[in-house]
Amino acid sequence: MKILNTINSPADLKKVPAEEIPALCGELREFLIENVSKTGGHFASNLGTVELTVALDRVYDPEKDRIVFDVGHQSYAHKILTGRRDDFSTLRQFGGLSGFPKPRESSCDAFITGHASTSVSVALGMARARTLQGQHYDVCAVIGDGSMTGGLAYEAIADAGQSGEPLVVILNDNAMSISQSVGGMASILSQMRTKPAYFNFKRLYHKTIGQIGPVYRFIHRIKEWVKSRVLPGNMFVDMGFYYLGPIDGHDEETLEQAIVYAREMRIPVLLHIITVKGKGYPYAEEQPDKYHGVSGFNPLTGIVPKTKDDFSSVFGRTLTELAETDQRITAITAAMLDGTGLNLFQRQHPDRLFDVGICEEHAVTMAAGMASQGLKPVICVYSSFLQRGYDMLIHDVSLSGAHVVFGVDRAGLVGADGETHHGVFDVNYLCSVPNMTVLCPASFAEVQVMLKTALEELDGPVAVRYPRGGEGSWKGCETADAAVVAPGRDVTIVCYGTMINNVLDAARQLEARGISPEIVKLSRIDTLDFSVIGASLEKTKRLLVAEEVCAAGCVGTRLLAECARQGLTLDGALLLNLGGGIVPHGTVEELKALYALDGNGIAYGVLSLLDRMEDETI
Amino acid sequence: MKILNTINSPADLKKVPAEEIPALCGELREFLIENVSKTGGHFASNLGTVELTVALDRVYDPEKDRIVFDVGHQSYAHKILTGRRDDFSTLRQFGGLSGFPKPRESSCDAFITGHASTSVSVALGMARARTLQGQHYDVCAVIGDGSMTGGLAYEAIADAGQSGEPLVVILNDNAMSISQSVGGMASILSQMRTKPAYFNFKRLYHKTIGQIGPVYRFIHRIKEWVKSRVLPGNMFVDMGFYYLGPIDGHDEETLEQAIVYAREMRIPVLLHIITVKGKGYPYAEEQPDKYHGVSGFNPLTGIVPKTKDDFSSVFGRTLTELAETDQRITAITAAMLDGTGLNLFQRQHPDRLFDVGICEEHAVTMAAGMASQGLKPVICVYSSFLQRGYDMLIHDVSLSGAHVVFGVDRAGLVGADGETHHGVFDVNYLCSVPNMTVLCPASFAEVQVMLKTALEELDGPVAVRYPRGGEGSWKGCETADAAVVAPGRDVTIVCYGTMINNVLDAARQLEARGISPEIVKLSRIDTLDFSVIGASLEKTKRLLVAEEVCAAGCVGTRLLAECARQGLTLDGALLLNLGGGIVPHGTVEELKALYALDGNGIAYGVLSLLDRMEDETI
Repeated sequence: MKILNTINSPADLKKVPAEEIPALCGELREFLIENVSKTGGHFASNLGTVELTVALDRVYDPEKDRIVFDVGHQSYAHKILTGRRDDFSTLRQFGGLSGFPKPRESSCDAFITGHASTSVSVALGMARARTLQGQHYDVCAVIGDGSMTGGLAYEAIADAGQSGEPLVVILNDNAMSISQSVGGMASILSQMRTKPAYFNFKRLYHKTIGQIGPVYRFIHRIKEWVKSRVLPGNMFVDMGFYYLGPIDGHDEETLEQAIVYAREMRIPVLLHIITVKGKGYPYAEEQPDKYHGVSGFNPLTGIVPKTKDDFSSVFGRTLTELAETDQRITAITAAMLDGTGLNLFQRQHPDRLFDVGICEEHAVTMAAGMASQGLKPVICVYSSFLQRGYDMLIHDVSLSGAHVVFGVDRAGLVGADGETHHGVFDVNYLCSVPNMTVLCPASFAEVQVMLKTALEELDGPVAVRYPRGGEGSWKGCETADAAVVAPGRDVTIVCYGTMINNVLDAARQLEARGISPEIVKLSRIDTLDFSVIGASLEKTKRLLVAEEVCAAGCVGTRLLAECARQGLTLDGALLLNLGGGIVPHGTVEELKALYALDGNGIAYGVLSLLDRMEDETI
Repeated sequence: MKILNTINSPADLKKVPAEEIPALCGELREFLIENVSKTGGHFASNLGTVELTVALDRVYDPEKDRIVFDVGHQSYAHKILTGRRDDFSTLRQFGGLSGFPKPRESSCDAFITGHASTSVSVALGMARARTLQGQHYDVCAVIGDGSMTGGLAYEAIADAGQSGEPLVVILNDNAMSISQSVGGMASILSQMRTKPAYFNFKRLYHKTIGQIGPVYRFIHRIKEWVKSRVLPGNMFVDMGFYYLGPIDGHDEETLEQAIVYAREMRIPVLLHIITVKGKGYPYAEEQPDKYHGVSGFNPLTGIVPKTKDDFSSVFGRTLTELAETDQRITAITAAMLDGTGLNLFQRQHPDRLFDVGICEEHAVTMAAGMASQGLKPVICVYSSFLQRGYDMLIHDVSLSGAHVVFGVDRAGLVGADGETHHGVFDVNYLCSVPNMTVLCPASFAEVQVMLKTALEELDGPVAVRYPRGGEGSWKGCETADAAVVAPGRDVTIVCYGTMINNVLDAARQLEARGISPEIVKLSRIDTLDFSVIGASLEKTKRLLVAEEVCAAGCVGTRLLAECARQGLTLDGALLLNLGGGIVPHGTVEELKALYALDGNGIAYGVLSLLDRMEDETI
């Protein structure tokens, strides 16, 4: 019987004898390898945090205490240990477990996370709520060194340090040096402080002298003052944190001791731990980036199926080629080099590639500065992460008229990553930025043409938005602002981007029933070429707009408004989109079906439009 | 003849003998006092940066070199010294000089700024553009300690420090300690380093040994390494900056030397200067906050006209009262305590008031954490600054269903602060946040009721948006989602918020001409109560929607779309709003007139709607 199979709750975990913990950690890794190789998901980061998670769930009561995992994709072991082991095969599947913490899924998940750098802010809010309400639970944020590069984390560390709130921030340092001061003398002395003998002494000191309260605190402050004068500080100490570490993040026993110690201090404590991404799976240890997020792999050989060309890689390749001849082109990414297909650019033009870390705000504003001095910066960024740069789009890019090109990747439904990652707001927010051009390629050929147009023919801010994954049956290259790509008489179907594939599917089904849809494909959506659409509607009198975006600010609303403004009366209109709620996770196909945005759904929508008309004419 | 009157260009300034500079600085202060007491504007910060600006404009060539002023409101002396002295009486007036740097106004303004913490990102982008293109101008960012609290600045400092780009960041420290390490030992040693003798030695060292390149750099690195082992570091040093300072920011000569030295180092240098906000005007030195932004004052007595009640103060007072009985209410501001009317709350409930610094992102996410644990956080923030929190509104507040209330202050036109500060995007971005309720009070009475409703009756995220300034002729309290506040027959005029005052004005004019408008006032705009509006339109068949927002995502578009969807055919429709461009500065009245959103404009709009109908029926 595996130890893991006996653990169905946090209480079970606490009963496991200390000597069995290493075996349990081994079982957890096996379980992760077996499952994630099938379901896909975030892999290397979860292998790296097995001991940390076991320690957290043993020290804290996750139902009452609040453990906030930053970016959340490293919460798999936590899910397995808190009653979700048997459901784990449903991870990231439609209707199954989320790949991120989700309070609605389990009371052991403190907060929803998916974007980086939020955990300290959330935890501080929780800690303050706890203190103000006179409650007694503990709060802990777990944040990686990558997430610590984000400005939000800095804002939160500054506030938390000054707050004095009892709060533990665990800095999970698995690769990048976040600061030169973490290293050298600071590192050596910190290691000394956490050597078992020193550590135990401190615990004893705290437990005995510590009881007398004010005196302990006074002595403690003198110690801290002396330390701050003698030792090189670091950002966290400067901001009011007690710094503890670095310690080995794969030594579960020491982790438990350190977390207990940090928790008992009743002040803001930063516990710095060192972990290895991919720990325990040699292929992932060697190439953690390759195994960061996977859609499945062979657990024995480590072989990850080769990915086919997708919009990201085509965008990256095209950009790299254009940069050959135009030295003014630069590429900027916010820690998404591989994801956005910029690795080729990095190899070919390393001096013009800027990876700024998880800093979308800075990426946008820095690009505006570049553009103001004659460069042509291109930022490749996921749609849902660019939400972070909304103010910078307006204030720094738009107001200055900067010619910055945005490769808005993962626009639309992203699938398994779900609600935190869907790129379903960008049509609304991009189109609100003054003078922003928004282009929507539907094929690889169109990506190439539109990126070239964006760089060479247009001025001011330009967004080229494209989805996760590859092209569908539409491989054409039709880049007119609005174009009739299939003439018809019964209904006008308007779409943009890869939604054309579903619309073409619907058209085939409709034509089989003798219904003739006219398909208008848009390539530009910041302004709408109503001449083409209006002419089509004059003929068909019926409009269906299919969009993979939230209802607010959708193109369909704008088209209907234009009809009303022009006095163009329709016999029927249907807007298919993702509505005003929160879009769950699942495959893109499942989600499109859910929202009637697949071929069937669109065809059914047209039928309903026509049926309704027949009813009215009876 | 005043020295100041001889300076019409940066070249003139460079000709002023060093011994006359203190007199020039005195004249600049007199000029500022004389002018800003009349025009209004940012005052204390400009008095504090007189010497700095003179030094910058003497050391650099502002036409070629790029001086980026963070938040930009401290750029008055720069404007005066770079050819805009005679236009200075038009400051912040419609058609006149902007209160912020504006490249379209002068080639000496490097970049538009108005929001905080952007300057280092912009400057780094410029520096990289310079280096990549093999050009030779210099780049300097000027940032206050307040702006340095923003996460964007941290992201930029981290990137700039590692970049190695020749770049000078001047940290203008005028009050708040931004870090414990700036002070104590660090401060003492830094002062030593910039004592004149030491400083001159360094310059000499650099100029002689420095010429030999690699050897100098090697020696320099050893020095830096030794320094970093011996001296307490600070965040800037840890991130790769050479730290210089602190020095007296009112000693112009030393400032010039230090800037030259920093510039010559050809690496990222942080020059830390200490200034006094309000310097040279005793009233402002004593109460710099009172003179931060003024609308005019008596230059002799320093008396600032008392401001009447405005929406901010009513909101703050109401919140303070509600917090008396509900201990769960907390208030959060991002360095806008006075501006958002929270000073009373701070006095009454200091333990529940959280000023997080210029950190809108953190404010929003921290509030989500608070709400998740049972508090009722209320964030008071300006509409244009909340743009920074757009991702946090979606990812942290909305997805978690947190009951966070937003007091969205300065919604709509703000007047003299102009294009960087108008709150004209929030209707669009707030309404796109899933499950966000958006309420629009039009009177003080409505603010009180709606805030109470937001806190006590609603759940999930709620925004209460209200404008800068006070209420107008509408003092009613009509909080139905949509209500006919004046019945009529010829046209339906829809509005929300204080636009009702202009609509009522228009209605009076129209009634005098025998035209009878029906006025529908909305109190809630995330969803639209079309039953009331539709019933009105069935009767009038004509729609005019007047809104103080950008066209994208405006309520008018949504109403027209709903008409089209429901097959409600109109005889005419007109959407009055701010369009898709950038809104300039001027008084709110002037701007409303510009966009036909004043009483006259709306009345004219109705006439045009009716005229058009008459033409058609002829």
